[in-house]
Amino acid sequence: MVTVALDKLLPRGSGPEARLTEAMRYAALGPGKRLRPFFTMEAGRLFDLDEGELLRAACALECIHAYSLVHDDLPAMDDDDMRRGRPTVHIEYDEMTAILAGDALQTVAFEIMADESTHADPAVRCELVRRLAVNAGAEGMAGGQMIDLLGVRDDLGGVARMQRLKTGALFANAFEIPLIMADASDAQRQALLGFAHDIGLAYQIVDDVLDAEGSAEEMGKAAGGKDAALGKINFVTLLGVDAARQRVAHLADQARAHLDLFGHDGDILKASVDLVLKRRS
Amino acid sequence: MVTVALDKLLPRGSGPEARLTEAMRYAALGPGKRLRPFFTMEAGRLFDLDEGELLRAACALECIHAYSLVHDDLPAMDDDDMRRGRPTVHIEYDEMTAILAGDALQTVAFEIMADESTHADPAVRCELVRRLAVNAGAEGMAGGQMIDLLGVRDDLGGVARMQRLKTGALFANAFEIPLIMADASDAQRQALLGFAHDIGLAYQIVDDVLDAEGSAEEMGKAAGGKDAALGKINFVTLLGVDAARQRVAHLADQARAHLDLFGHDGDILKASVDLVLKRRS
Repeated sequence: MVTVALDKLLPRGSGPEARLTEAMRYAALGPGKRLRPFFTMEAGRLFDLDEGELLRAACALECIHAYSLVHDDLPAMDDDDMRRGRPTVHIEYDEMTAILAGDALQTVAFEIMADESTHADPAVRCELVRRLAVNAGAEGMAGGQMIDLLGVRDDLGGVARMQRLKTGALFANAFEIPLIMADASDAQRQALLGFAHDIGLAYQIVDDVLDAEGSAEEMGKAAGGKDAALGKINFVTLLGVDAARQRVAHLADQARAHLDLFGHDGDILKASVDLVLKRRS
Repeated sequence: MVTVALDKLLPRGSGPEARLTEAMRYAALGPGKRLRPFFTMEAGRLFDLDEGELLRAACALECIHAYSLVHDDLPAMDDDDMRRGRPTVHIEYDEMTAILAGDALQTVAFEIMADESTHADPAVRCELVRRLAVNAGAEGMAGGQMIDLLGVRDDLGGVARMQRLKTGALFANAFEIPLIMADASDAQRQALLGFAHDIGLAYQIVDDVLDAEGSAEEMGKAAGGKDAALGKINFVTLLGVDAARQRVAHLADQARAHLDLFGHDGDILKASVDLVLKRRS
Protein backbone atom coordinates (compact mmCIF):
# COMPACT_ATOMS: atom_id res chain seq x y z
CA MET A 1 0.00 0.00 0.00
CA VAL A 2 2.76 2.42 0.97
CA THR A 3 4.87 1.43 -2.02
CA VAL A 4 1.95 1.96 -4.42
CA ALA A 5 1.23 5.36 -2.89
CA LEU A 6 4.91 6.35 -3.02
CA ASP A 7 5.06 5.29 -6.64
CA LYS A 8 2.27 7.72 -7.42
CA LEU A 9 3.70 10.56 -5.35
CA LEU A 10 7.29 10.46 -6.58
CA PRO A 11 8.08 12.47 -9.70
CA ARG A 12 8.93 10.85 -13.05
CA GLY A 13 11.28 13.18 -14.80
CA SER A 14 11.49 13.52 -18.54
CA GLY A 15 14.57 14.80 -20.29
CA PRO A 16 18.10 14.35 -19.02
CA GLU A 17 17.12 14.89 -15.37
CA ALA A 18 15.17 11.62 -15.50
CA ARG A 19 18.31 9.99 -14.08
CA LEU A 20 17.62 11.88 -10.85
CA THR A 21 14.00 10.81 -10.52
CA GLU A 22 14.93 7.23 -11.41
CA ALA A 23 17.49 7.18 -8.61
CA MET A 24 14.94 8.65 -6.19
CA ARG A 25 12.50 5.90 -7.14
CA TYR A 26 15.18 3.22 -6.87
CA ALA A 27 15.92 4.40 -3.34
CA ALA A 28 12.36 4.85 -2.11
CA LEU A 29 10.49 2.05 -3.90
CA GLY A 30 12.93 -0.81 -3.28
CA PRO A 31 12.38 -3.50 -0.68
CA GLY A 32 11.96 -2.19 2.85
CA LYS A 33 9.99 -2.85 5.97
CA ARG A 34 8.03 0.44 5.76
CA LEU A 35 8.03 0.37 9.54
CA ARG A 36 7.38 4.08 10.06
CA PRO A 37 4.42 4.19 7.63
CA PHE A 38 3.05 1.02 9.27
CA PHE A 39 3.08 2.75 12.64
CA THR A 40 1.52 5.91 11.22
CA MET A 41 -1.31 3.96 9.62
CA GLU A 42 -1.96 1.76 12.66
CA ALA A 43 -1.84 4.65 15.12
CA GLY A 44 -4.14 6.57 12.78
CA ARG A 45 -6.77 3.86 13.17
CA LEU A 46 -6.95 4.65 16.90
CA PHE A 47 -8.44 8.00 15.94
CA ASP A 48 -10.48 6.94 12.92
CA LEU A 49 -8.52 9.27 10.63
CA ASP A 50 -8.83 9.47 6.85
CA GLU A 51 -6.65 6.72 5.37
CA GLY A 52 -5.72 8.59 2.21
CA GLU A 53 -4.50 11.62 4.16
CA LEU A 54 -2.59 9.47 6.64
CA LEU A 55 -0.98 7.57 3.79
CA ARG A 56 0.28 10.74 2.12
CA ALA A 57 1.84 11.93 5.38
CA ALA A 58 3.30 8.45 5.97
CA CYS A 59 4.86 8.57 2.50
CA ALA A 60 6.40 11.96 3.24
CA LEU A 61 8.01 10.50 6.35
CA GLU A 62 9.22 7.48 4.39
CA CYS A 63 10.87 9.82 1.85
CA ILE A 64 12.87 11.39 4.69
CA HIS A 65 13.87 7.92 5.88
CA ALA A 66 14.83 6.90 2.34
CA TYR A 67 16.91 10.06 1.82
CA SER A 68 18.77 9.40 5.07
CA LEU A 69 19.66 5.87 3.98
CA VAL A 70 20.97 7.06 0.60
CA HIS A 71 23.23 9.62 2.25
CA ASP A 72 24.27 7.34 5.14
CA ASP A 73 25.46 4.75 2.62
CA LEU A 74 27.75 7.22 0.78
CA PRO A 75 31.50 6.56 0.74
CA ALA A 76 32.12 9.61 2.97
CA MET A 77 29.61 8.30 5.49
CA ASP A 78 29.12 4.58 6.25
CA ASP A 79 30.45 3.52 2.84
CA ASP A 80 28.04 0.64 2.28
CA ASP A 81 27.82 -1.03 -1.14
CA MET A 82 24.74 -3.12 -0.44
CA ARG A 83 21.40 -2.52 1.26
CA ARG A 84 18.61 -5.09 1.44
CA GLY A 85 20.33 -7.30 -1.09
CA ARG A 86 20.67 -4.58 -3.74
CA PRO A 87 23.50 -2.22 -4.64
CA THR A 88 23.19 1.08 -2.80
CA VAL A 89 22.28 4.15 -4.86
CA HIS A 90 25.83 5.42 -5.35
CA ILE A 91 26.87 1.95 -6.59
CA GLU A 92 23.86 1.47 -8.88
CA TYR A 93 24.13 5.04 -10.20
CA ASP A 94 27.07 7.14 -9.00
CA GLU A 95 27.98 9.31 -6.08
CA MET A 96 26.75 12.64 -7.46
CA THR A 97 23.42 11.12 -8.43
CA ALA A 98 23.09 9.58 -4.96
CA ILE A 99 23.76 12.91 -3.24
CA LEU A 100 21.20 14.65 -5.45
CA ALA A 101 18.64 11.86 -5.13
CA GLY A 102 18.86 12.06 -1.33
CA ASP A 103 18.53 15.83 -1.50
CA ALA A 104 15.48 15.68 -3.75
CA LEU A 105 13.83 12.92 -1.67
CA GLN A 106 14.07 15.21 1.33
CA THR A 107 12.55 18.06 -0.70
CA VAL A 108 9.64 16.01 -2.01
CA ALA A 109 8.78 14.94 1.55
CA PHE A 110 7.97 18.54 2.45
CA GLU A 111 6.16 19.09 -0.83
CA ILE A 112 3.89 16.13 -0.09
CA MET A 113 3.30 17.21 3.49
CA ALA A 114 2.38 20.80 2.59
CA ASP A 115 0.01 19.85 -0.23
CA GLU A 116 -3.67 20.42 0.47
CA SER A 117 -4.46 16.77 -0.32
CA THR A 118 -2.64 15.79 2.89
CA HIS A 119 -5.13 17.52 5.18
CA ALA A 120 -7.96 20.01 4.73
CA ASP A 121 -6.72 22.24 7.57
CA PRO A 122 -3.57 24.19 6.60
CA ALA A 123 -2.68 24.68 10.28
CA VAL A 124 -2.45 20.89 10.59
CA ARG A 125 -0.28 20.67 7.47
CA CYS A 126 2.07 23.37 8.76
CA GLU A 127 2.46 21.54 12.04
CA LEU A 128 3.14 18.28 10.14
CA VAL A 129 5.84 20.06 8.09
CA ARG A 130 7.35 21.75 11.13
CA ARG A 131 7.55 18.61 13.26
CA LEU A 132 8.95 16.56 10.38
CA ALA A 133 11.65 19.21 9.94
CA VAL A 134 12.48 19.29 13.64
CA ASN A 135 12.68 15.51 13.82
CA ALA A 136 14.80 15.22 10.68
CA GLY A 137 17.14 18.16 11.31
CA ALA A 138 20.21 19.11 13.29
CA GLU A 139 18.46 18.53 16.58
CA GLY A 140 17.01 15.22 15.38
CA MET A 141 18.08 12.65 12.82
CA ALA A 142 20.91 14.64 11.20
CA GLY A 143 22.34 15.54 14.61
CA GLY A 144 22.24 11.89 15.62
CA GLN A 145 24.00 10.86 12.42
CA MET A 146 26.73 13.43 13.15
CA ILE A 147 27.24 11.92 16.62
CA ASP A 148 27.28 8.42 15.16
CA LEU A 149 29.86 9.29 12.50
CA LEU A 150 32.11 11.08 14.98
CA GLY A 151 32.00 7.98 17.19
CA VAL A 152 31.95 10.22 20.25
CA ARG A 153 30.17 8.14 22.83
CA ASP A 154 31.61 6.04 25.55
CA ASP A 155 28.74 5.14 27.84
CA LEU A 156 25.12 4.02 27.73
CA GLY A 157 23.87 7.58 28.09
CA GLY A 158 25.80 8.68 25.02
CA VAL A 159 24.69 5.70 22.96
CA ALA A 160 21.08 6.19 24.05
CA ARG A 161 21.18 9.90 23.19
CA MET A 162 22.64 9.13 19.76
CA GLN A 163 19.87 6.57 19.14
CA ARG A 164 17.17 8.95 20.35
CA LEU A 165 18.27 11.54 17.79
CA LYS A 166 19.35 9.34 14.89
CA THR A 167 16.46 6.89 14.77
CA GLY A 168 14.16 7.80 17.66
CA ALA A 169 13.11 11.14 16.22
CA LEU A 170 11.64 9.64 13.04
CA PHE A 171 9.98 6.83 15.01
CA ALA A 172 8.35 9.53 17.13
CA ASN A 173 7.33 11.37 13.96
CA ALA A 174 5.43 8.30 12.74
CA PHE A 175 3.15 8.74 15.75
CA GLU A 176 3.16 12.53 15.78
CA ILE A 177 1.45 12.49 12.38
CA PRO A 178 -1.80 10.93 13.63
CA LEU A 179 -1.55 12.79 16.93
CA ILE A 180 -1.40 16.12 15.08
CA MET A 181 -4.13 15.15 12.61
CA ALA A 182 -6.41 14.03 15.45
CA ASP A 183 -5.63 16.95 17.74
CA ALA A 184 -5.11 14.26 20.37
CA SER A 185 -5.20 14.71 24.14
CA ASP A 186 -2.08 14.99 26.30
CA ALA A 187 -2.69 11.49 27.66
CA GLN A 188 -2.93 10.07 24.15
CA ARG A 189 0.24 11.92 23.15
CA GLN A 190 2.15 10.59 26.13
CA ALA A 191 0.97 7.05 25.49
CA LEU A 192 1.93 6.96 21.80
CA LEU A 193 5.18 8.90 22.17
CA GLY A 194 6.10 6.61 25.10
CA PHE A 195 5.39 3.64 22.86
CA ALA A 196 7.50 5.22 20.08
CA HIS A 197 10.37 5.83 22.47
CA ASP A 198 10.43 2.30 23.84
CA ILE A 199 10.02 0.51 20.55
CA GLY A 200 12.53 2.77 18.82
CA LEU A 201 15.13 2.11 21.47
CA ALA A 202 14.40 -1.63 21.49
CA TYR A 203 14.64 -1.70 17.71
CA GLN A 204 18.09 -0.14 17.84
CA ILE A 205 19.28 -2.63 20.47
CA VAL A 206 18.00 -5.49 18.29
CA ASP A 207 19.94 -3.92 15.43
CA ASP A 208 23.10 -3.97 17.52
CA VAL A 209 22.45 -7.61 18.49
CA LEU A 210 21.99 -8.51 14.83
CA ASP A 211 25.17 -6.62 13.99
CA ALA A 212 27.05 -8.70 16.55
CA GLU A 213 25.46 -12.02 15.63
CA GLY A 214 23.99 -11.68 12.17
CA SER A 215 25.41 -13.04 8.99
CA ALA A 216 25.85 -10.96 5.86
CA GLU A 217 23.18 -13.10 4.24
CA GLU A 218 20.57 -12.34 6.88
CA MET A 219 21.24 -8.63 7.05
CA GLY A 220 21.46 -8.09 3.31
CA LYS A 221 24.48 -5.97 4.03
CA ALA A 222 27.91 -6.36 5.53
CA ALA A 223 27.52 -7.67 9.07
CA GLY A 224 29.23 -9.98 11.55
CA GLY A 225 30.02 -7.44 14.22
CA LYS A 226 30.80 -4.57 11.91
CA ASP A 227 30.45 -2.05 14.72
CA ALA A 228 32.80 -4.01 16.96
CA ALA A 229 35.29 -4.44 14.12
CA LEU A 230 35.24 -0.67 13.58
CA GLY A 231 35.69 -0.08 17.30
CA LYS A 232 32.24 1.48 17.49
CA ILE A 233 30.54 1.48 20.86
CA ASN A 234 26.92 0.30 20.81
CA PHE A 235 24.41 -1.26 23.18
CA VAL A 236 25.84 -4.75 22.73
CA THR A 237 29.51 -3.79 23.09
CA LEU A 238 28.53 -2.01 26.34
CA LEU A 239 25.99 -4.45 27.78
CA GLY A 240 26.80 -7.79 26.17
CA VAL A 241 24.27 -9.78 24.16
CA ASP A 242 22.36 -11.31 27.07
CA ALA A 243 21.75 -8.08 28.95
CA ALA A 244 20.90 -6.34 25.67
CA ARG A 245 18.25 -8.99 24.97
CA GLN A 246 16.82 -8.58 28.47
CA ARG A 247 16.58 -4.87 27.89
CA VAL A 248 14.69 -5.45 24.65
CA ALA A 249 12.19 -7.67 26.46
CA HIS A 250 11.72 -5.07 29.18
CA LEU A 251 11.21 -2.29 26.65
CA ALA A 252 8.71 -4.44 24.73
CA ASP A 253 6.61 -4.91 27.89
CA GLN A 254 6.79 -1.23 28.65
CA ALA A 255 5.83 -0.32 25.08
CA ARG A 256 2.72 -2.51 25.23
CA ALA A 257 1.77 -1.08 28.62
CA HIS A 258 1.63 2.42 27.16
CA LEU A 259 -1.15 1.25 24.86
CA ASP A 260 -3.47 0.15 27.67
CA LEU A 261 -5.02 3.61 27.42
CA PHE A 262 -6.61 2.61 24.12
CA GLY A 263 -8.15 -0.67 25.33
CA HIS A 264 -8.68 -3.27 22.60
CA ASP A 265 -8.17 -0.63 19.91
CA GLY A 266 -4.47 -0.89 20.70
CA ASP A 267 -4.28 -4.65 20.17
CA ILE A 268 -2.80 -4.53 16.65
CA LEU A 269 -0.07 -2.13 17.73
CA LYS A 270 0.60 -4.32 20.77
CA ALA A 271 0.87 -7.38 18.57
CA SER A 272 3.24 -5.56 16.27
CA VAL A 273 5.84 -5.20 19.01
CA ASP A 274 7.02 -8.78 18.78
CA LEU A 275 6.85 -8.80 14.98
CA VAL A 276 8.99 -5.69 14.81
CA LEU A 277 11.52 -6.85 17.36
CA LYS A 278 11.78 -10.51 16.32
CA ARG A 279 12.93 -9.53 12.86
CA ARG A 280 15.74 -11.41 11.22
CA SER A 281 17.06 -8.44 9.31
CA MET B 1 20.15 42.31 7.98
CA VAL B 2 19.75 38.89 6.41
CA THR B 3 22.92 37.61 8.05
CA VAL B 4 21.82 38.83 11.49
CA ALA B 5 18.43 37.18 11.02
CA LEU B 6 19.99 33.94 9.79
CA ASP B 7 22.32 33.94 12.78
CA LYS B 8 19.30 34.00 15.08
CA LEU B 9 17.37 31.37 13.12
CA LEU B 10 20.09 28.75 12.73
CA PRO B 11 20.48 26.24 15.55
CA ARG B 12 23.48 26.23 17.88
CA GLY B 13 24.02 22.65 18.91
CA SER B 14 25.45 21.61 22.22
CA GLY B 15 27.15 18.28 22.73
CA PRO B 16 29.07 16.41 20.04
CA GLU B 17 26.59 17.34 17.29
CA ALA B 18 27.73 20.98 17.65
CA ARG B 19 30.13 20.24 14.79
CA LEU B 20 27.10 19.93 12.52
CA THR B 21 25.51 23.22 13.53
CA GLU B 22 28.90 24.96 13.32
CA ALA B 23 29.32 23.73 9.74
CA MET B 24 25.76 24.87 8.90
CA ARG B 25 26.57 28.32 10.26
CA TYR B 26 29.91 28.42 8.44
CA ALA B 27 28.09 27.71 5.18
CA ALA B 28 25.13 30.05 5.64
CA LEU B 29 26.67 32.99 7.51
CA GLY B 30 29.84 33.44 5.45
CA PRO B 31 30.27 36.18 2.87
CA GLY B 32 27.66 36.16 0.13
CA LYS B 33 25.63 38.54 -1.98
CA ARG B 34 22.30 37.51 -0.39
CA LEU B 35 20.77 38.23 -3.76
CA ARG B 36 17.66 36.14 -3.31
CA PRO B 37 16.80 37.66 0.10
CA PHE B 38 17.46 41.13 -1.35
CA PHE B 39 14.89 40.49 -4.07
CA THR B 40 12.39 39.06 -1.60
CA MET B 41 12.67 42.10 0.65
CA GLU B 42 12.55 44.63 -2.19
CA ALA B 43 9.63 42.95 -3.93
CA GLY B 44 7.90 42.74 -0.54
CA ARG B 45 8.00 46.54 -0.29
CA LEU B 46 5.81 46.75 -3.40
CA PHE B 47 3.03 45.22 -1.32
CA ASP B 48 3.76 46.84 2.03
CA LEU B 49 4.30 43.46 3.67
CA ASP B 50 5.55 42.86 7.22
CA GLU B 51 9.35 43.07 7.15
CA GLY B 52 9.92 40.56 9.92
CA GLU B 53 7.80 37.93 8.22
CA LEU B 54 9.39 38.56 4.83
CA LEU B 55 12.82 38.31 6.38
CA ARG B 56 12.10 34.91 7.89
CA ALA B 57 10.89 33.57 4.55
CA ALA B 58 13.89 35.13 2.80
CA CYS B 59 16.18 33.38 5.29
CA ALA B 60 14.48 30.05 4.59
CA LEU B 61 15.15 30.52 0.89
CA GLU B 62 18.76 31.50 1.61
CA CYS B 63 19.20 28.26 3.62
CA ILE B 64 18.16 26.28 0.52
CA HIS B 65 20.63 28.26 -1.58
CA ALA B 66 23.37 27.69 1.02
CA TYR B 67 22.68 23.94 1.16
CA SER B 68 22.90 23.72 -2.62
CA LEU B 69 26.32 25.41 -2.63
CA VAL B 70 27.68 23.07 0.06
CA HIS B 71 26.59 20.00 -1.90
CA ASP B 72 27.58 21.41 -5.31
CA ASP B 73 31.12 21.98 -4.01
CA LEU B 74 31.56 18.35 -2.88
CA PRO B 75 34.28 16.22 -4.51
CA ALA B 76 31.64 14.04 -6.22
CA MET B 77 29.98 17.14 -7.68
CA ASP B 78 31.92 20.24 -8.82
CA ASP B 79 34.85 19.47 -6.49
CA ASP B 80 35.59 23.06 -5.50
CA ASP B 81 38.03 23.78 -2.66
CA MET B 82 37.32 27.49 -2.39
CA ARG B 83 34.20 29.65 -2.42
CA ARG B 84 34.20 33.40 -1.88
CA GLY B 85 37.80 33.35 -0.72
CA ARG B 86 37.23 30.74 1.99
CA PRO B 87 37.70 26.98 2.03
CA THR B 88 34.49 25.17 1.11
CA VAL B 89 32.70 23.26 3.87
CA HIS B 90 34.16 19.86 3.07
CA ILE B 91 37.67 21.38 3.13
CA GLU B 92 37.15 23.38 6.34
CA TYR B 93 35.41 20.42 8.03
CA ASP B 94 35.26 17.15 6.11
CA GLU B 95 33.09 15.50 3.53
CA MET B 96 30.67 13.73 5.85
CA THR B 97 30.10 16.92 7.83
CA ALA B 98 29.51 18.85 4.59
CA ILE B 99 26.93 16.34 3.36
CA LEU B 100 25.10 16.46 6.70
CA ALA B 101 25.34 20.25 6.99
CA GLY B 102 23.78 20.63 3.54
CA ASP B 103 21.07 18.16 4.50
CA ALA B 104 20.27 19.97 7.73
CA LEU B 105 20.31 23.40 6.06
CA GLN B 106 17.64 22.14 3.71
CA THR B 107 15.62 20.81 6.64
CA VAL B 108 15.82 24.03 8.66
CA ALA B 109 14.57 26.00 5.63
CA PHE B 110 11.25 24.17 5.80
CA GLU B 111 11.14 24.43 9.59
CA ILE B 112 11.49 28.23 9.34
CA MET B 113 8.92 28.51 6.57
CA ALA B 114 6.29 26.42 8.39
CA ASP B 115 6.67 28.22 11.71
CA GLU B 116 3.77 30.46 12.71
CA SER B 117 6.14 33.43 13.11
CA THR B 118 6.58 33.46 9.32
CA HIS B 119 2.94 34.33 8.61
CA ALA B 120 -0.26 34.44 10.61
CA ASP B 121 -2.22 32.51 7.97
CA PRO B 122 -1.27 28.81 7.88
CA ALA B 123 -2.60 28.51 4.31
CA VAL B 124 0.01 31.07 3.26
CA ARG B 125 2.75 29.21 5.13
CA CYS B 126 1.79 25.91 3.48
CA GLU B 127 1.94 27.52 0.06
CA LEU B 128 5.35 29.02 0.90
CA VAL B 129 6.59 25.56 1.92
CA ARG B 130 5.10 23.88 -1.12
CA ARG B 131 6.48 26.33 -3.66
CA LEU B 132 9.92 26.30 -2.02
CA ALA B 133 9.91 22.51 -2.29
CA VAL B 134 8.81 22.53 -5.92
CA ASN B 135 11.45 25.10 -6.84
CA ALA B 136 14.22 23.30 -4.95
CA GLY B 137 13.36 19.74 -5.95
CA ALA B 138 13.74 17.31 -8.81
CA GLU B 139 11.71 19.52 -11.14
CA GLY B 140 13.60 22.63 -10.07
CA MET B 141 17.07 23.25 -8.67
CA ALA B 142 18.07 19.63 -8.04
CA GLY B 143 16.91 18.59 -11.51
CA GLY B 144 18.94 21.42 -13.02
CA GLN B 145 22.01 20.39 -11.08
CA MET B 146 21.58 16.84 -12.40
CA ILE B 147 21.50 18.15 -15.99
CA ASP B 148 24.51 20.36 -15.31
CA LEU B 149 26.56 17.51 -13.86
CA LEU B 150 25.66 15.15 -16.68
CA GLY B 151 26.81 17.81 -19.15
CA VAL B 152 24.00 16.79 -21.49
CA ARG B 153 23.29 19.94 -23.42
CA ASP B 154 24.45 20.91 -26.84
CA ASP B 155 22.41 23.92 -27.85
CA LEU B 156 21.04 27.15 -26.46
CA GLY B 157 17.71 25.56 -25.63
CA GLY B 158 19.39 22.92 -23.48
CA VAL B 159 21.61 25.43 -21.70
CA ALA B 160 18.65 27.74 -21.09
CA ARG B 161 16.53 24.90 -19.72
CA MET B 162 19.34 23.84 -17.39
CA GLN B 163 19.68 27.42 -16.14
CA ARG B 164 15.94 27.82 -15.68
CA LEU B 165 15.88 24.78 -13.40
CA LYS B 166 19.23 25.09 -11.64
CA THR B 167 19.22 28.78 -10.77
CA GLY B 168 16.02 30.22 -12.25
CA ALA B 169 13.70 28.31 -9.93
CA LEU B 170 15.18 29.81 -6.75
CA PHE B 171 15.27 33.29 -8.32
CA ALA B 172 11.58 32.87 -9.05
CA ASN B 173 11.00 31.72 -5.48
CA ALA B 174 12.47 34.96 -4.15
CA PHE B 175 9.56 36.75 -5.83
CA GLU B 176 6.96 34.06 -5.17
CA ILE B 177 7.37 34.66 -1.43
CA PRO B 178 5.96 38.22 -1.48
CA LEU B 179 3.46 37.29 -4.22
CA ILE B 180 2.06 34.53 -2.02
CA MET B 181 2.10 36.65 1.13
CA ALA B 182 0.32 39.49 -0.65
CA ASP B 183 -2.16 37.30 -2.52
CA ALA B 184 -1.09 39.31 -5.56
CA SER B 185 -3.01 39.72 -8.81
CA ASP B 186 -2.20 37.77 -11.96
CA ALA B 187 -0.76 40.90 -13.55
CA GLN B 188 1.54 41.44 -10.57
CA ARG B 189 2.58 37.79 -10.65
CA GLN B 190 3.40 37.94 -14.34
CA ALA B 191 5.38 41.16 -13.90
CA LEU B 192 7.54 39.90 -11.03
CA LEU B 193 8.02 36.38 -12.37
CA GLY B 194 8.93 37.86 -15.75
CA PHE B 195 11.46 40.07 -13.99
CA ALA B 196 12.80 37.04 -12.10
CA HIS B 197 13.11 35.06 -15.32
CA ASP B 198 15.00 37.75 -17.20
CA ILE B 199 17.33 38.71 -14.41
CA GLY B 200 18.02 35.09 -13.48
CA LEU B 201 18.93 34.24 -17.06
CA ALA B 202 21.03 37.39 -17.44
CA TYR B 203 22.80 36.62 -14.17
CA GLN B 204 23.77 33.18 -15.45
CA ILE B 205 25.08 34.58 -18.73
CA VAL B 206 27.17 37.10 -16.75
CA ASP B 207 28.46 34.16 -14.72
CA ASP B 208 29.52 32.40 -17.91
CA VAL B 209 31.21 35.59 -19.16
CA LEU B 210 33.07 35.90 -15.87
CA ASP B 211 34.04 32.24 -16.08
CA ALA B 212 35.51 32.87 -19.52
CA GLU B 213 37.24 36.12 -18.66
CA GLY B 214 37.56 36.30 -14.91
CA SER B 215 40.69 35.68 -12.93
CA ALA B 216 40.80 33.37 -9.93
CA GLU B 217 41.38 36.46 -7.79
CA GLU B 218 38.19 38.19 -8.91
CA MET B 219 35.97 35.14 -8.65
CA GLY B 220 37.27 33.93 -5.30
CA LYS B 221 37.32 30.48 -6.82
CA ALA B 222 39.03 28.67 -9.64
CA ALA B 223 38.22 30.46 -12.89
CA GLY B 224 39.77 31.44 -16.19
CA GLY B 225 37.43 29.58 -18.46
CA LYS B 226 36.89 26.60 -16.20
CA ASP B 227 33.80 25.51 -18.13
CA ALA B 228 35.63 25.70 -21.45
CA ALA B 229 38.59 23.82 -20.01
CA LEU B 230 36.21 21.09 -18.85
CA GLY B 231 34.54 21.02 -22.25
CA LYS B 232 31.30 22.28 -20.71
CA ILE B 233 28.87 24.03 -23.01
CA ASN B 234 27.53 27.33 -21.68
CA PHE B 235 26.11 30.58 -23.03
CA VAL B 236 29.55 31.98 -23.84
CA THR B 237 30.94 28.88 -25.50
CA LEU B 238 27.79 28.84 -27.69
CA LEU B 239 27.33 32.57 -28.36
CA GLY B 240 30.76 34.10 -27.86
CA VAL B 241 31.43 36.88 -25.36
CA ASP B 242 30.10 39.77 -27.44
CA ALA B 243 26.76 38.24 -28.31
CA ALA B 244 26.43 37.03 -24.71
CA ARG B 245 26.95 40.60 -23.46
CA GLN B 246 24.34 41.89 -25.92
CA ARG B 247 21.92 39.33 -24.64
CA VAL B 248 22.51 40.47 -21.07
CA ALA B 249 21.78 44.07 -22.05
CA HIS B 250 18.59 43.02 -23.81
CA LEU B 251 17.44 40.95 -20.84
CA ALA B 252 18.20 43.85 -18.48
CA ASP B 253 15.95 46.18 -20.52
CA GLN B 254 13.25 43.58 -20.63
CA ALA B 255 13.50 42.96 -16.88
CA ARG B 256 13.07 46.67 -16.12
CA ALA B 257 10.10 46.91 -18.49
CA HIS B 258 8.25 44.25 -16.49
CA LEU B 259 8.32 46.59 -13.52
CA ASP B 260 6.52 49.45 -15.25
CA LEU B 261 3.34 48.03 -13.78
CA PHE B 262 4.43 49.23 -10.35
CA GLY B 263 5.26 52.83 -11.37
CA HIS B 264 7.83 54.55 -9.18
CA ASP B 265 7.45 51.85 -6.52
CA GLY B 266 9.51 49.65 -8.82
CA ASP B 267 12.42 52.08 -9.07
CA ILE B 268 14.69 50.37 -6.54
CA LEU B 269 14.24 47.00 -8.21
CA LYS B 270 14.88 48.61 -11.58
CA ALA B 271 18.04 50.22 -10.28
CA SER B 272 19.18 46.88 -8.86
CA VAL B 273 19.37 45.34 -12.32
CA ASP B 274 22.63 47.02 -13.24
CA LEU B 275 24.10 46.48 -9.78
CA VAL B 276 23.33 42.79 -9.96
CA LEU B 277 24.59 42.33 -13.50
CA LYS B 278 27.68 44.54 -13.33
CA ARG B 279 29.17 42.46 -10.54
CA ARG B 280 32.81 41.60 -10.60
CA SER B 281 32.36 38.21 -8.95
